[in-house]
Amino acid sequence: MPLMTAEVLAVGTELLLGEIVNTNAQFFAQELAALGISHHWQTVVGDNVERIHQGLAQATARSQLVLCTGGLGPTPDDLTTEAIAGYFQTPLVEHPQIFADIQAKYARRGLATPENNRKQALLPQGAEILPNPKGTAPGMIWSPRPDVTVMTFPGVPSELQTMWRETAVPYLQAQGWVTGVIVSQNLRFWGISEAALAAKVQDFFTPTNPTVAPYASKGETRLRITARAADREIALALIAPVSAQLQQRVGMDCYGLDGDTLAQVVGQLLQTRGDTLAVAESCTGGLLGAMITEVAGSSSYFQGGVVSYANGVKEDLLGVPAELLTTQGAVSAAVAMAMAVGVRERLATTWGLSITGIAGPGGGSEAKPVGLVYIALAGAGGRVTPWEHRFSPERGREWIRHLSANQALDHLRRTLLNAV
Amino acid sequence: MPLMTAEVLAVGTELLLGEIVNTNAQFFAQELAALGISHHWQTVVGDNVERIHQGLAQATARSQLVLCTGGLGPTPDDLTTEAIAGYFQTPLVEHPQIFADIQAKYARRGLATPENNRKQALLPQGAEILPNPKGTAPGMIWSPRPDVTVMTFPGVPSELQTMWRETAVPYLQAQGWVTGVIVSQNLRFWGISEAALAAKVQDFFTPTNPTVAPYASKGETRLRITARAADREIALALIAPVSAQLQQRVGMDCYGLDGDTLAQVVGQLLQTRGDTLAVAESCTGGLLGAMITEVAGSSSYFQGGVVSYANGVKEDLLGVPAELLTTQGAVSAAVAMAMAVGVRERLATTWGLSITGIAGPGGGSEAKPVGLVYIALAGAGGRVTPWEHRFSPERGREWIRHLSANQALDHLRRTLLNAV
Repeated sequence: MPLMTAEVLAVGTELLLGEIVNTNAQFFAQELAALGISHHWQTVVGDNVERIHQGLAQATARSQLVLCTGGLGPTPDDLTTEAIAGYFQTPLVEHPQIFADIQAKYARRGLATPENNRKQALLPQGAEILPNPKGTAPGMIWSPRPDVTVMTFPGVPSELQTMWRETAVPYLQAQGWVTGVIVSQNLRFWGISEAALAAKVQDFFTPTNPTVAPYASKGETRLRITARAADREIALALIAPVSAQLQQRVGMDCYGLDGDTLAQVVGQLLQTRGDTLAVAESCTGGLLGAMITEVAGSSSYFQGGVVSYANGVKEDLLGVPAELLTTQGAVSAAVAMAMAVGVRERLATTWGLSITGIAGPGGGSEAKPVGLVYIALAGAGGRVTPWEHRFSPERGREWIRHLSANQALDHLRRTLLNAV
Repeated sequence: MPLMTAEVLAVGTELLLGEIVNTNAQFFAQELAALGISHHWQTVVGDNVERIHQGLAQATARSQLVLCTGGLGPTPDDLTTEAIAGYFQTPLVEHPQIFADIQAKYARRGLATPENNRKQALLPQGAEILPNPKGTAPGMIWSPRPDVTVMTFPGVPSELQTMWRETAVPYLQAQGWVTGVIVSQNLRFWGISEAALAAKVQDFFTPTNPTVAPYASKGETRLRITARAADREIALALIAPVSAQLQQRVGMDCYGLDGDTLAQVVGQLLQTRGDTLAVAESCTGGLLGAMITEVAGSSSYFQGGVVSYANGVKEDLLGVPAELLTTQGAVSAAVAMAMAVGVRERLATTWGLSITGIAGPGGGSEAKPVGLVYIALAGAGGRVTPWEHRFSPERGREWIRHLSANQALDHLRRTLLNAV
């Protein structure tokens, strides 16, 4: 069972032109850490045979596993496979089943397969197919020398990630190359700043196993608990008590773990209660509904909603009184409340959740600046609660809309948690 | 005036653990391209002296300018400056004004300067200070050999960017190393695969100036035209005729340039005509509305919409006949058409655009598999057009929803372009 070091060789002129950021390198970094595989180098080169060769020379001199990303497409500038074969002086051979697969994928969409795709069926002699269930072309797993394994992945992140998890990781495990693990758990927080959270739990920031570190991301805060151990079970057992203590300390500000979203957590709470939800959106324009319906199975509690971008739609579809719009303005607590009540009644749901605000860049005034957002929640018995928020206008339209939709979900979450 | 090649050497264990993504490399890639400085390699190593030395050996053997990021902080794992000095066997010397500056920055925040920060005042003998107006520690500009210049920057993006623009770029210009520019234009396509597009324009893929290269990204296809020239004006003049020829060749499949989105392009077309739009969404749950309202100023043509996730909402708010839902099913061309007509009538708009489909993972059947999506567009005079799409179920829910919303916008775009 040799000690293995992996490195990432990303191929793509679009990376060297700065058109995209190398998130694939970050993905592999996280995954290799989780598997306990050492990883000391990441390199980016363009779509250029000579430099791919030079990159392979460097990588194979110091690492036993080289993860190549990009350059597997059907066009002439996609050179990775043939450059790798050339570097190891091995001929390319055609795999008819690859091209048959590609043809089947096109056919299912009612399309003919372009002749260009034929080159994607070529792999170096001796290489195994690394299947790509999400896209047209597969990658490969190949050991051209006893001390080196090369894997190739397309640059499209969703394809690469599926191929890694479904085929590459089991392969590495079967080879006995996964010897220990680093496991992280993230606690996710809404409604508390990184500094405030850090102050609350700073006695946890000691260099022990597991470690705890705070960070901020897209308007929310996280605590990452990281454990090193021989296997995943042991690592999780180290994490569990620390996670429990932290959750107890911070209480309701912690909305979930790892990949949880506010929409998921709210969905589970609604489902448990047998409640239903409808939304009325103005400045978010559908974003709140889109977040809620990102969750598979959301149709069991989400009925739908109204995007009332124009005032006329607020009146006609939600029954907001014209007088309220005139006297209070569309961005007001009163209108948010009328929207929430209106959508709840018309869609006959347990809860009605509404957002109205000024996302900018235009439309602000001194009294009602960009970033002013009202959220309201209507429940049983005519109860309706409004909240006022003032988000930083400098952060821009997209940020304000993102915060607004998540904040609305968080208000609903806290209400459901507090309800008997 | 020597020809210069630059490369990026990022130092940081946090990059190799995947805790952050290397946006600094993307920033330098964009900046170097804009300055016309060739840039063929990017490397990431951890906070490790031996590997920083190896990275410097590689970089200085093939590039004349090495941009190092990260590892300039005050803690023991910040090793970049001393590793560089060590590699070139040059002693570190203290710059008292650097420490005085750091003390002044702390004092302004009412804090004493930790003794740790003293090491940030050390630079290799002969290096110039690269001032850091936004953070505590500066970087350096140093030519340890006549053929090599090394610059160091902290890893914090805002500090690095300010240092680059305020000091590093003027330095490169003064050295005569900025001799031209590389400018790219992206043509963006919807509704044509990368392979099909490549086949249509493959005579453009020749190594001339400008170059043309295709790539695929998030369900769409792009052609990137890249020109090298003495200045931006000349580069744009080289790009313009090629761009025009390509647009003429591919016609309506090209929806825009560079940062354009389908929602923006559709918005401009609607605005020009004085038309208005309303949407009715089922499986996308608000995503289409969210995309449309991402565009600032969209309130001038977008009235709003109905998210009719439940069948009852389709009946009550859109007037879809219950019988249609029973006989045809909610995912059918007939229901998509009724939704489009219904939302257009109720919101009194020029156009009504609808989506109903099966985003999965559940809800599919043999007759109506996951990925089956109907889109309909209702216009004046009772005209209504349905489209059927079968998106790859393997791509998953998020992908199907993303494609569905963009595809709906593209149908509207093509209809508006074809309308007299």
